[in-house]
Amino acid sequence: MQISASKWLDIWQANRRLTRRVIEAFPEDQLFSFSIGGMRTFGDMIKELLAVEGPGIEEIVTGVRQKFDEHASYQTKHELLDKWDAETARIDKFWADLPSEKYLERVNLFGQYESSVIDAILYFVENEIHHRGQGFVYLRSLGIQPPFFWER
Amino acid sequence: MQISASKWLDIWQANRRLTRRVIEAFPEDQLFSFSIGGMRTFGDMIKELLAVEGPGIEEIVTGVRQKFDEHASYQTKHELLDKWDAETARIDKFWADLPSEKYLERVNLFGQYESSVIDAILYFVENEIHHRGQGFVYLRSLGIQPPFFWER
Repeated sequence: MQISASKWLDIWQANRRLTRRVIEAFPEDQLFSFSIGGMRTFGDMIKELLAVEGPGIEEIVTGVRQKFDEHASYQTKHELLDKWDAETARIDKFWADLPSEKYLERVNLFGQYESSVIDAILYFVENEIHHRGQGFVYLRSLGIQPPFFWER
Repeated sequence: MQISASKWLDIWQANRRLTRRVIEAFPEDQLFSFSIGGMRTFGDMIKELLAVEGPGIEEIVTGVRQKFDEHASYQTKHELLDKWDAETARIDKFWADLPSEKYLERVNLFGQYESSVIDAILYFVENEIHHRGQGFVYLRSLGIQPPFFWER
């Protein structure tokens, strides 16, 4: 099944736009404090996504080992959103330099996650959808209506 | 980016195997009663997935309009798992008859959801990941460790 490189980027970035809306929907004081069942806060989940996606695609494209740091010190919604937007631009930038011959190559992201390039990219998106779904429950639990899932 | 038809089926079915483990992990009495923030029970979310994926792929392949029914009367975990397995087999069966020329065709699933075939299939998987992520929060809230996300 042929999906063009630009279509893949669209799928990824459309998902990122929705996740951005979920971050925006969180009350500032709950983003880094509210949790259910001993899970991480949604802010911490977002830190993980920020640590994985942009650095991941940069490492895939350049071959230069990136540092995996999911414990960045962002403490406000504004900082998270700024970083989110910076990573969105980083993904656009490196995606443009990803030749399609590379999709089946093996990578060992951050020196610890071995897979094919395509599986790594699929993981980025699936992992984001997974955590965003969790963010929806947090929002509902806080009495806040999440954005529509199909609104990209 | 070329992903073979069999690879797509693998991605989809690997996700379904993980979701099946999440259903299994639910205590029988919570599957159709526990909810957070006024959301649906996980049992009801699974009924939605059962209503969408198997009937969806059948309609895509055969062109025969399927009924969309997300309020089936399953009342036990056993019934849900049996139906899950039947739909898994149905997906395998119809996938084998989906010619790749069809991926870009337009469909109007269940007479109400218009998209390309590929977008419909992506939606099936993304929607499942989304609700499964919510199931993870329900399980954690019940003090139950969900399966590992990367365990397919």
